[in-house]
Amino acid sequence: MKTDLECVPCIIKQTINTLKISGCSNKLSKKVVSELLQKLENIDYDLSPAANSDIGYIVFREVTGIKDPYYDLKRKYNRLALDIYPKLEKVVDSVKNKLYMAAKVAIAGNVIDFGIDIKKVNTLDFNKIIQDLQNMPLAVDDYDKFRESLKDSINILYITDNAGEIVFDKVLIKELVKLDKKVVLTVKSDPIINDATLEDAVEAEFDNLARVIETGNSNIGINISDSSDAFLEEFKKADLIISKGQGNFETLDETGANIFFLLKAKCEKITRELGVKHSDIVFAESKARPGKSNAVK
Amino acid sequence: MKTDLECVPCIIKQTINTLKISGCSNKLSKKVVSELLQKLENIDYDLSPAANSDIGYIVFREVTGIKDPYYDLKRKYNRLALDIYPKLEKVVDSVKNKLYMAAKVAIAGNVIDFGIDIKKVNTLDFNKIIQDLQNMPLAVDDYDKFRESLKDSINILYITDNAGEIVFDKVLIKELVKLDKKVVLTVKSDPIINDATLEDAVEAEFDNLARVIETGNSNIGINISDSSDAFLEEFKKADLIISKGQGNFETLDETGANIFFLLKAKCEKITRELGVKHSDIVFAESKARPGKSNAVK
Repeated sequence: MKTDLECVPCIIKQTINTLKISGCSNKLSKKVVSELLQKLENIDYDLSPAANSDIGYIVFREVTGIKDPYYDLKRKYNRLALDIYPKLEKVVDSVKNKLYMAAKVAIAGNVIDFGIDIKKVNTLDFNKIIQDLQNMPLAVDDYDKFRESLKDSINILYITDNAGEIVFDKVLIKELVKLDKKVVLTVKSDPIINDATLEDAVEAEFDNLARVIETGNSNIGINISDSSDAFLEEFKKADLIISKGQGNFETLDETGANIFFLLKAKCEKITRELGVKHSDIVFAESKARPGKSNAVK
Repeated sequence: MKTDLECVPCIIKQTINTLKISGCSNKLSKKVVSELLQKLENIDYDLSPAANSDIGYIVFREVTGIKDPYYDLKRKYNRLALDIYPKLEKVVDSVKNKLYMAAKVAIAGNVIDFGIDIKKVNTLDFNKIIQDLQNMPLAVDDYDKFRESLKDSINILYITDNAGEIVFDKVLIKELVKLDKKVVLTVKSDPIINDATLEDAVEAEFDNLARVIETGNSNIGINISDSSDAFLEEFKKADLIISKGQGNFETLDETGANIFFLLKAKCEKITRELGVKHSDIVFAESKARPGKSNAVK
């Protein structure tokens, strides 16, 4: 996906959110914004919004020297999610189509995202999320295609998004393991926003449920050209890929791999791309399927 | 009011809105955004958000050569507002406290603002606005102070905001004239966003209801240091000033004149300044009253 004009103010807003979270002084914050504006003057609109959003976080790190401003929030949301984990399992156990409900649980977890919107940073109501799960309608629902594709799939690559959210992902991964799928989980090698890293995977207590690998970088979404060998190997080996959140969608929507995108739509650009409304939840098969010219495989 | 960090992305967003309205090519739009980013690198945070927003529109005009991208929209909304004008008068006639309801009508008209939000550019529902008027609660309600101040006031300066909206203003001005007040109406000398100019005042059919003067510029809000002599004279002469919309609030909130701000809160910065929620409607007395050090008078 390419960057639109409207992504420019959003990139700046994301950086300002990070400045607020980090508690930087007004003077330092103004310096970060000024340097970011300078960098964005020559923004490459052919790159994905996620790749261009990286610029904001890079400038933030360079100017402030702060490496992981979301560290405490990541700990907090892992804990909160682990607290309600038994309830999430109960919701899945209470229905007939457990895999479908587990997927919904995983998508619901995508609400724990502080890149674009930090308003809810301290007010996320997990109990409300659980209540809503049963009747949560998917604006795009390619579950049947997912179920079909799963039949022929053994190796599943599960590309995570945020800390806290990965506890919700565990519910879906557990269902996949029950179906004898081999799941490899990806996390970021270094901190970026509240994206999950190895520390989060450990805190989320994945244990032997899935093998955890690192992407090799701290890019928002997946930067194929800068990924670790371990990641690229699993990406190619995977029969089916589950991709969580907007950043991964923005960077993987044109790869042509067999990907299912599970996400909550959080900006106008994404809603247009997917033909959905703001805040809609989506379970969408990749439109750039194998055999097409842009396929990575 | 000073500019906050968060105003920076908003200024860019406003300019992108104008680019969309004007139908500029993607290439030209990118050029405008790039030049704007360059200009904003050294943004003066001590100026008002409105003053800094001017930069976006200046760059837009310079790069595209387009002087009045909102021209057709202004015509359209004057017509639409004139169509429902009899209904607006009826709403006021139907209640006991006509002046209070007329003020609410004027505030309701402030929804016709395409600077910050162009989503509703073609979907404004005037009938819904009228329906809501009766029960529209003011988040800040200094009407009693306004009524008190009005007793000692003869010369009223009415600082307008948008085209279309000024037809709603006419309802309030009519009530003021009934109370034997002398009303002077200000409009912009040149186009800026969909702010009212002389052409709009003529279209709104003010006739002899109020004397219309120009601000002397095309700044968002009021730029005291660049205003026409006619404006400055009326500003100093006025016993009471009615100021419509955010831009005028941002630029006049520290002048110390006897101003009542009638507006709909459209951004977080304003909601914080006024202690209200987004989309709240406000009838607020100026907190920087005469006698204070920052008073202009």
